[in-house]
Amino acid sequence: MPPLALTIGDPAGIGPELAAASWALREDEGLPPFFVVGSARLVEQAARARGLTGPVCAVTSPDEVAECFADALPVLDLGDLDYRPGAPDDEGATLALRTLEVATGLVRSGAAAALVTGPIAKSRLARVGFTHPGQTEFVAQACGITPENAVMMLAGPSLKVVPITVHMALRDVPHVLTAELIRSRAAIAAAGLVRDYGIARPRLAVAGLNPHAGEDGRMGREDIDVVAPAVAMLREAGIDAFGPLPPDTMFHAQARAGFDVAICMYHDQALIPMKALDFDEGVNVTLGLPIVRTSPDHGTAFGIAGTGAARVGPTIAALRMAGECAARRALP
Amino acid sequence: MPPLALTIGDPAGIGPELAAASWALREDEGLPPFFVVGSARLVEQAARARGLTGPVCAVTSPDEVAECFADALPVLDLGDLDYRPGAPDDEGATLALRTLEVATGLVRSGAAAALVTGPIAKSRLARVGFTHPGQTEFVAQACGITPENAVMMLAGPSLKVVPITVHMALRDVPHVLTAELIRSRAAIAAAGLVRDYGIARPRLAVAGLNPHAGEDGRMGREDIDVVAPAVAMLREAGIDAFGPLPPDTMFHAQARAGFDVAICMYHDQALIPMKALDFDEGVNVTLGLPIVRTSPDHGTAFGIAGTGAARVGPTIAALRMAGECAARRALP
Repeated sequence: MPPLALTIGDPAGIGPELAAASWALREDEGLPPFFVVGSARLVEQAARARGLTGPVCAVTSPDEVAECFADALPVLDLGDLDYRPGAPDDEGATLALRTLEVATGLVRSGAAAALVTGPIAKSRLARVGFTHPGQTEFVAQACGITPENAVMMLAGPSLKVVPITVHMALRDVPHVLTAELIRSRAAIAAAGLVRDYGIARPRLAVAGLNPHAGEDGRMGREDIDVVAPAVAMLREAGIDAFGPLPPDTMFHAQARAGFDVAICMYHDQALIPMKALDFDEGVNVTLGLPIVRTSPDHGTAFGIAGTGAARVGPTIAALRMAGECAARRALP
Repeated sequence: MPPLALTIGDPAGIGPELAAASWALREDEGLPPFFVVGSARLVEQAARARGLTGPVCAVTSPDEVAECFADALPVLDLGDLDYRPGAPDDEGATLALRTLEVATGLVRSGAAAALVTGPIAKSRLARVGFTHPGQTEFVAQACGITPENAVMMLAGPSLKVVPITVHMALRDVPHVLTAELIRSRAAIAAAGLVRDYGIARPRLAVAGLNPHAGEDGRMGREDIDVVAPAVAMLREAGIDAFGPLPPDTMFHAQARAGFDVAICMYHDQALIPMKALDFDEGVNVTLGLPIVRTSPDHGTAFGIAGTGAARVGPTIAALRMAGECAARRALP
């Protein structure tokens, strides 16, 4: 299997130091070979700032990674920047955008096995010409997939969740949800669990929108009018979906044992239990793409960049999961 | 301290067997003396159905409890009913209502130290003349408190949560929330933590309504217009409240260490993390009353009543917490 490609994200954020910190733990954590897409000089400075002493080796192609990974952190060098943690600028945003483009291309071509993206600041990238709402939409489009068909899953050791709606006001959620939206995203999630996680027949627990899933319409009609029809459509398509379930009793250990993924109606319904249970190990996975793409489930954290406080767990989890999914796709 | 009063709830539900099962574990669990308010014959039959062999002793006053609690389950006998698990009827509902009235009166008078209510079916009680939305409202009114000032808290070993709104459709939540509603309920919660939990200066983590607490208004205005002003009012009143916080990152272990109670904007925002973390030990506590009142955080579960499947953990947790809170109030 070729190496994984890890972008540094915004060079002023916590991405560069976490790339170096992950490499430092490669043996303890059993990580597959990966290379960083970014700036060798900047990554080396970020490593030093975090007190890491391991060397960095600049590479010009993923082919060179296998040779040096054991002894140095391979960096595909796209620019000679200095590390200025906490001070994002247009130069850094331009580099972040370029690393995303290059890394996606390398994975698309098969030269890299999977894409792991470091955190960017969308508003920063927008200043240098990035027109997508986020990295996911960019990657989807680069892969020839409409962004609506790229589905976010948050995956931790205890729980996998797919939020059907994401970054919108809570008051808008009931108006945006449709049976077809739920059906299509859940079906993509189910296919992703088969393909990338080796689950032959994934069990999808579909959450209700309202408390107690509406109690037969006494607390909102959406569970009857929208969620239940989506579940029926999924079942007709041969997918083992069930619900709408009362959201508050879906996430304890015994309930979790009964499903492979929770299909959630809104951001916090999905992310509250995921982060309560698996805060340090949550991986953001994009399903529905022709490539494997993961990212650590946190932002640029400019405020703590360079201080050593940023937790490396999510990056390690994202690298490990990307490696596992890519290995599964590589099976004959 | 006088004994605790535990009502059986609906006699066809899981309340009677859990009363007996709790008594059977009184020594292992270190429970304070309590008595059941219900029917001695029915509770004895429920105990037998669960395979419990301990005797029941009918008492006519809480004064008699101390004498017999070690050797038999004391039942304040209010009616000679037979146990018909899973088959609720008006006779049972009438008994459930009567037990609630009597038990509340005994706690109000000081003859019992705290009230622990078993689960009822509201629709069943409504058939026999119960005009309140639930037991909490009944108890509040019996204590001379307007129901709006009785505040529900869910408390487990990992987390305490107060949902500001409860049983309503999610789409109604943004319209019902006001700064004054949040302020008043949070202030009652803070006073309850001082009085009943011995926390000198409770720390209140106030959740935002929207994802990321709205991100400066980009995902909903309520966090700016409603939640933030409530937090400001609480702080002006000398309460250590902070927020609105991004809801998804409030509930992991490290975050929980920073507060004593999470003030949540809606049912599932509070109950999803509580039940994910503390499913078997969640206690429903009513704050703002002149008496201590708790209940196990589950319903009548008619479907499994009499089968032995009902979990006793929540009833034991409710009894233990009621005893602790009452003991704290009894301090000079």
